[in-house]
Amino acid sequence: MSRVYLDYNATMPLRSEARESMIAAMDVVGNPSSVHAEGRAAKALIERARAQIAEAFGAEDADIVFVSSATEAAALASEGRGFLACGIEHDAVLAWCEARLPCDAHGIVSVAEPARAALQVANSETGVVQRIPAGLGLMDATQAFGKLNLSFTGSGARMAMLSAHKLGGPKGIGALVLRRGTDIVARLRGGGQEMGRRSGTENVIGIAGFAAAAQAAAADVAAGRWERVRELRNILEKALEAETKNTIFVGNQVDRLPNTLCLATPGWKGETQVVQMDLAGFAISAGSACSSGKVRASRVLQAMGYDDTTAASAIRVSLGLNTTKQDVLRFAEAWLSKEQKHRARAA
Amino acid sequence: MSRVYLDYNATMPLRSEARESMIAAMDVVGNPSSVHAEGRAAKALIERARAQIAEAFGAEDADIVFVSSATEAAALASEGRGFLACGIEHDAVLAWCEARLPCDAHGIVSVAEPARAALQVANSETGVVQRIPAGLGLMDATQAFGKLNLSFTGSGARMAMLSAHKLGGPKGIGALVLRRGTDIVARLRGGGQEMGRRSGTENVIGIAGFAAAAQAAAADVAAGRWERVRELRNILEKALEAETKNTIFVGNQVDRLPNTLCLATPGWKGETQVVQMDLAGFAISAGSACSSGKVRASRVLQAMGYDDTTAASAIRVSLGLNTTKQDVLRFAEAWLSKEQKHRARAA
Repeated sequence: MSRVYLDYNATMPLRSEARESMIAAMDVVGNPSSVHAEGRAAKALIERARAQIAEAFGAEDADIVFVSSATEAAALASEGRGFLACGIEHDAVLAWCEARLPCDAHGIVSVAEPARAALQVANSETGVVQRIPAGLGLMDATQAFGKLNLSFTGSGARMAMLSAHKLGGPKGIGALVLRRGTDIVARLRGGGQEMGRRSGTENVIGIAGFAAAAQAAAADVAAGRWERVRELRNILEKALEAETKNTIFVGNQVDRLPNTLCLATPGWKGETQVVQMDLAGFAISAGSACSSGKVRASRVLQAMGYDDTTAASAIRVSLGLNTTKQDVLRFAEAWLSKEQKHRARAA
Repeated sequence: MSRVYLDYNATMPLRSEARESMIAAMDVVGNPSSVHAEGRAAKALIERARAQIAEAFGAEDADIVFVSSATEAAALASEGRGFLACGIEHDAVLAWCEARLPCDAHGIVSVAEPARAALQVANSETGVVQRIPAGLGLMDATQAFGKLNLSFTGSGARMAMLSAHKLGGPKGIGALVLRRGTDIVARLRGGGQEMGRRSGTENVIGIAGFAAAAQAAAADVAAGRWERVRELRNILEKALEAETKNTIFVGNQVDRLPNTLCLATPGWKGETQVVQMDLAGFAISAGSACSSGKVRASRVLQAMGYDDTTAASAIRVSLGLNTTKQDVLRFAEAWLSKEQKHRARAA
């Protein structure tokens, strides 16, 4: 039987539109900084991509700075700003922000001073969606862009982080979106690319893939294609709820990403579940994938007030547009079989 | 007539080996940080690429940290170290180093304290090659790797910067090479990728292309394929020397990259020459390409002691492995025709 990939929040397979756009960009010879025809063609590709991403993200009035990852966007946006954030934010945000904003048991964050705060639109582990307060300093749209109907201009945020690979573009390219007039201090200096905000020869092929994926992702959102995924996620959740006793379905009382299911079965380590399901042919995750292979208790669940045992037992199942009903039913059957064995051992 | 690309030092067209390797990597679905089979496959691709680049660069005993550009490698290696450098270095190095090391009229740099210095192996504009002193703090191998026979371990340097697109890999990926035991302070923090030295989901497709290009480039160097290019460069240089009066051939008294020709014709702006040659079907450059379309007097030539008028009149012609004798003869004819017109106007 073929494997079932249910870890779309860790990374989404490359969309065919991105693939084609990247292969076409491989023939663009010039350095975008060169003034000759070959250089101008490379520059034109970048500027076209920038406009396409702006359109897909409702950011036509904003500046888009290409960076190598949302992690780099977080650093470029946050270093030295003294932003406050909640403990449920991504490590790349918390590296530069004070984790002082509270959240409730559902993971909803309270933001007192939006201009001084960094806040995610949706959490990667739980899928929980925040209401973005007007004037937010930094909006982490990494998980939400491409899954929810989002507009940067409409959000009222000053800055936003994006990552291509979360929406079907390639890994290694992202963007920092800036309300026009927002100053940032360049962290990479030298050639003066990206209007002096981020030096270094541009990732032309990656940018081409990012733009194609962003356009395709926005079209999928606009067409409501995630509603089918939401139904599958709900089918999966109900199937598991019906057969389990101690399992907690995290965040299911509030608005969530349509594709994300986070469940914790206290006493059964998430890490163990990931390995067991991997051997059974299913790719899921425990905690965040962005920890270089290390699996720890979910910091997100800890920040939501769950105890360490519960936080260490969390797994995330995240579906994609190509996930089928058979995929989720097969997963439910396989996981429930392991869960019963775990209960039998624990009894 | 088809265009002639003679700006290989700005960027080299993507090698077929890199293209194939990147297209294959597009099917690698997982996030390298994920512990399941899909994640491990992505991780394995990265580690294989790392070993291939180490082999191509003679750095099997060293650590290789993937970054988004040589510019990022320079920042990661240099920030806070107080390195000294010469004014002929790349802007990305000079952004973090004090420009206090002297060079002679040929562009050969004097390094008093190698451990405190950053030094390029070869200059991007003139092609002039330095002798690398043992124990050098930071070696900028961006232009030399893939054109000269280089070994990181053999060089005795502590750190080295590499860029994929200068040797036929994709733009947007590079590496910082570290002698084992060399500490660096991570500038990108979060997920802890690259052994905590550089967080952010890895550019898997770019890394695959970098490794394939590095292997192919090292094989070309080992096979002596740049010697034919050196002959073509010399044919071009002699053809121009024979017909010009005031043109200076920069760096031709010392060891140069085999593919690079830098010439200055005082009073005839390099910028003008680039545009005239572009219209005539030839891609060349004035100064460094890495200046976001701005063309200024060559800072490199100024640092070598040339006056501003001469420095503003410099152009760089840089050949590649696919450059033909017809290409350079056509260029010589076209350029000399413009040069005669310039002289007639100036007279």
